[in-house]
Amino acid sequence: MKEELLTSLKNPRVQAFRSLKERKGRLQHSAFWVEGDKMVSEALASGFPVEALVVREDRETPEGLPEHLPVYRVPDRVFAALSDTRTPQGIAAAVSMRPRAPEGNRLIVLDGVQDPGNVGTILRTADAAGLDGAILGPDCADVFSPKTLRATMGSVFRMRLLFPPDLAACLREKRDAGFAILSSQLDGEPFYGRKNVGEKWALVIGNEGNGVSPRVQAEATHRLRLPMRGGAESLNAAIAAGIMMYDLTREA
Amino acid sequence: MKEELLTSLKNPRVQAFRSLKERKGRLQHSAFWVEGDKMVSEALASGFPVEALVVREDRETPEGLPEHLPVYRVPDRVFAALSDTRTPQGIAAAVSMRPRAPEGNRLIVLDGVQDPGNVGTILRTADAAGLDGAILGPDCADVFSPKTLRATMGSVFRMRLLFPPDLAACLREKRDAGFAILSSQLDGEPFYGRKNVGEKWALVIGNEGNGVSPRVQAEATHRLRLPMRGGAESLNAAIAAGIMMYDLTREA
Repeated sequence: MKEELLTSLKNPRVQAFRSLKERKGRLQHSAFWVEGDKMVSEALASGFPVEALVVREDRETPEGLPEHLPVYRVPDRVFAALSDTRTPQGIAAAVSMRPRAPEGNRLIVLDGVQDPGNVGTILRTADAAGLDGAILGPDCADVFSPKTLRATMGSVFRMRLLFPPDLAACLREKRDAGFAILSSQLDGEPFYGRKNVGEKWALVIGNEGNGVSPRVQAEATHRLRLPMRGGAESLNAAIAAGIMMYDLTREA
Repeated sequence: MKEELLTSLKNPRVQAFRSLKERKGRLQHSAFWVEGDKMVSEALASGFPVEALVVREDRETPEGLPEHLPVYRVPDRVFAALSDTRTPQGIAAAVSMRPRAPEGNRLIVLDGVQDPGNVGTILRTADAAGLDGAILGPDCADVFSPKTLRATMGSVFRMRLLFPPDLAACLREKRDAGFAILSSQLDGEPFYGRKNVGEKWALVIGNEGNGVSPRVQAEATHRLRLPMRGGAESLNAAIAAGIMMYDLTREA
């Protein structure tokens, strides 16, 4: 472990860390930024390569770090500029993006889910429900933005993620491989009266306003809706996803 | 319908409307403030007495309003000061608080749920699941704050709400009346293996960090937890509430 002090906001490394707040910077560096003790320890325990640790001057460097991990100490002023939160905990890490393609039989699919809190919460819930991975279409909120990462509560490090450029084509392959493709939509058949979906399935959650896109709907083997019993017209996307994922794994 | 123009921020009526943004003003006037076409039309269709409609100058007054409803027209500058949103739709209403006590057999109970988005989303989901009402303990986020109201998507007008000063005492009465009191807690028994809860039940969701309070737990007839299969330690409170409410009404 080597430690280095960075004091200037103009330092190129500080500028590179700072760029990770924005999608452009994350793509350029193939890395993202996580903050706080919990997220940093989840990152270190995960299979994701941690590129650097950043620790504010007033904090101790954690013990038991990997030997070759660069550690940068920075003054409060620099940490505040790097941080996305109002009351930073003083520890953060730059982590390489190395999405692991989902293997396994039970997948959650996001088709244009645009609220970062919804995307993060769905990944957290999918992890808790024991799903095997997630497939995110190109129109979803960025998984690696600070707000989404916070909402995952660390599940981003445990879920296998796939980002296909063409979601409909990807689901056609899954269907050809024997998966049931379950499209959640308000004009579908009753969810609780569904035909047997088998062991291999991918549950698709659509955009908050417009639902599952027509091209993706065309690949569905099942179109399903949850009951709406009161005067409510719809459910929040993350709530609907949670109810369906837990019910589909009810017997598991 | 009488229309009146209000142009000054110092006008006492404008100041009264403005005070509804804060809890203190809402309690003082026993009223709350809703914004946007959807919420205003839900308010007008509900059993809640609408005290006044406020319409920005550039908008037309809606047709078919109740005859005695006061309508105030205000310039953009005044509407912006009254509004809680960044891009106001230009229509809002002051609505009297007239909580209707829940009757019926299936209730959601919030014990210290503090995030306004969670409180609002849980009411929306309870409405969609067909529950009969909600009981909110004194430590919950304010149902009538702008953020909570938005998250209810209008369900606040359809759900019967009760705000007992002592939540544990209220649940003891329900238990004595034959209700199963279901406490959602991470150290409970498996939710899907639960004993029959009967026709009358109240599902308790606790605080985001600390769960159901000890005094309320003491009134529980069932302590239940959802399975956590991946590495996730917990679920978001609104997600857990949604999964449980839909499962409890699965056969309904």
